[in-house]
Amino acid sequence: MSDPVFLRACRGLPVSHRPVWLMRQAGRYMEEYRALREKMPILEMMKDPAIATEVTLQPINAFPVDAAIIFADILTLPEAMGLNLEFIPGKGPVFHNPIQDMSDVQKLRPLNAERDLDFTLEAIRMTRAQLSSDIPLIGFSGAPFTLACYAVEGSGSKNFDEVRAWMYNDPDRWAALMDRLTDGVLDYLQAQIDAGAQALQLFDSWAGCLPVQAYERFAAPWTRKIMEGLGDQVPRIHFAANGGHLLEVLADLPLEVIGVDWRQDPRQVIKRVGTQHVLQGNLDPALLLAGEEALEEALPALLDSYREAKGHIVNLGHGVIKTTKPERVAQFVTRIHELSRQA
Amino acid sequence: MSDPVFLRACRGLPVSHRPVWLMRQAGRYMEEYRALREKMPILEMMKDPAIATEVTLQPINAFPVDAAIIFADILTLPEAMGLNLEFIPGKGPVFHNPIQDMSDVQKLRPLNAERDLDFTLEAIRMTRAQLSSDIPLIGFSGAPFTLACYAVEGSGSKNFDEVRAWMYNDPDRWAALMDRLTDGVLDYLQAQIDAGAQALQLFDSWAGCLPVQAYERFAAPWTRKIMEGLGDQVPRIHFAANGGHLLEVLADLPLEVIGVDWRQDPRQVIKRVGTQHVLQGNLDPALLLAGEEALEEALPALLDSYREAKGHIVNLGHGVIKTTKPERVAQFVTRIHELSRQA
Repeated sequence: MSDPVFLRACRGLPVSHRPVWLMRQAGRYMEEYRALREKMPILEMMKDPAIATEVTLQPINAFPVDAAIIFADILTLPEAMGLNLEFIPGKGPVFHNPIQDMSDVQKLRPLNAERDLDFTLEAIRMTRAQLSSDIPLIGFSGAPFTLACYAVEGSGSKNFDEVRAWMYNDPDRWAALMDRLTDGVLDYLQAQIDAGAQALQLFDSWAGCLPVQAYERFAAPWTRKIMEGLGDQVPRIHFAANGGHLLEVLADLPLEVIGVDWRQDPRQVIKRVGTQHVLQGNLDPALLLAGEEALEEALPALLDSYREAKGHIVNLGHGVIKTTKPERVAQFVTRIHELSRQA
Repeated sequence: MSDPVFLRACRGLPVSHRPVWLMRQAGRYMEEYRALREKMPILEMMKDPAIATEVTLQPINAFPVDAAIIFADILTLPEAMGLNLEFIPGKGPVFHNPIQDMSDVQKLRPLNAERDLDFTLEAIRMTRAQLSSDIPLIGFSGAPFTLACYAVEGSGSKNFDEVRAWMYNDPDRWAALMDRLTDGVLDYLQAQIDAGAQALQLFDSWAGCLPVQAYERFAAPWTRKIMEGLGDQVPRIHFAANGGHLLEVLADLPLEVIGVDWRQDPRQVIKRVGTQHVLQGNLDPALLLAGEEALEEALPALLDSYREAKGHIVNLGHGVIKTTKPERVAQFVTRIHELSRQA
């Protein structure tokens, strides 16, 4: 029982309570974060290891969460491969030279994470040195499909319709882009393990916009390559936002933990993916916006709905919404601990 | 065999070919539509029965689709109940006096569709008089949940997070709002049948943002009331955009046709909902943005994937994207007819 609860849960081992962490647990809903954010642009915060460490530790100091996740952004990877990134206030991330044709794909520079993304690796080393030994540190990357969406669209989009058309129109060009991004993601994640990350989450934030067959053909093979390339050095967590329709495909990939979107019924999820995987999720983030009473009422049902799972890491079914009150996060984490210790 | 193919397919009867229509088949991707749209605001177009009729008939004249759908907007109903609606260019629909508390709910005026929404009823009568007898006319309404989303938020939103919190926080207030909207929807849809609509589609455009249990508690009872209130006078079609997780709940409602979002695998859908319902869908709309070849390749697989369904009405899995080329729509409709006649 010497391993931290979060890591034991990732492996499906018995635990004293259900571990809890929250996607986007460091962020604008915290006053401490906003105070830093007022002083510097977000990309500078991420590229300053001391600041990134401080932000990573903010929710650890504020709430009894069971894991930390390194403060970083998925788009620093394509930036390091040659795409010119800017975060435009009110609009979000923009690449000024999006991928348009095969020659753009071929111009992408192979990533060397130790050289190109050392700011995040250094933040991992600094955070690990400051974190208590019972709080594991999670590293992460965007999945190649999601990175390709931004690289081709050049910005966010409601459903990346034009990217799907671009993908359908030239599967070889798509594969060439995915190959290059996949090599980069694999190098980046291995470097995060080497720097001290004790679990890894792959965020496929836009996989949900793909039909099932398109996901199988245009995304899953590259995600598989990453998961196989990493092996089981550390637990591998996969989260496809709005990806409930992809669960059967995800359950066939070599990974330990499947993240569950807030829309899904955990009992149906267990029926569909079986009990080979630990599940992570999936409180509706809007319940943290609602009052104390509505949240309190929802928690026993959440715990109960995962009773038949191989294991359960408690999380939201998407990131913390920026208008969330910190006291609701505190209530969520504390009550999950209390309720799951009793159970 | 005297009934039009579309209506026969809605009832699960044998058909000579699979009928096709497209959500948003009248719209900005058509030059004829843009020519009208340049001359007047969208709300005025909808409130002028002659213009609404002309727009409804544009895709019928351009493509061999098997059904027409009346040109209207789901938000004219809450407008008629007292919410002050404006379509702001670049931003979309806005209600200037959104619902905030119980007193706002109580101030909503009961709908009298014959008095308040006669422009759409008159457009149905005019369209029906001009349409060939083998092309049925579909009427529609927004579902109460989706109307409530706009009424409370006051505009569109990525996921209506704040509306879900408002809903969780006071279930009685929510029920009072849903009761009033449901009475309005039922009156409006019955009036559309009386005016000549031969099938009805309920668009629950935002049901997809609800967790399954929340949909069962906060939305499905009112959708059931509408479907039961209508009975089987005309085929009842339900479309919940991004609602793949809700299929089991939808299959339990009294209705004939379930619309399938583009993300879903039809074979999995059939496994989950059984063969009591005809299915409608679900080509990825991005395939109409892709080239002729990519679209051609996708169509036999689409038809084949519904082989085990009770019946299949071919459609997109979401509305036509405004940058779609009309020749792709023509190819889609024509090839579906050809391929399904051979099969």
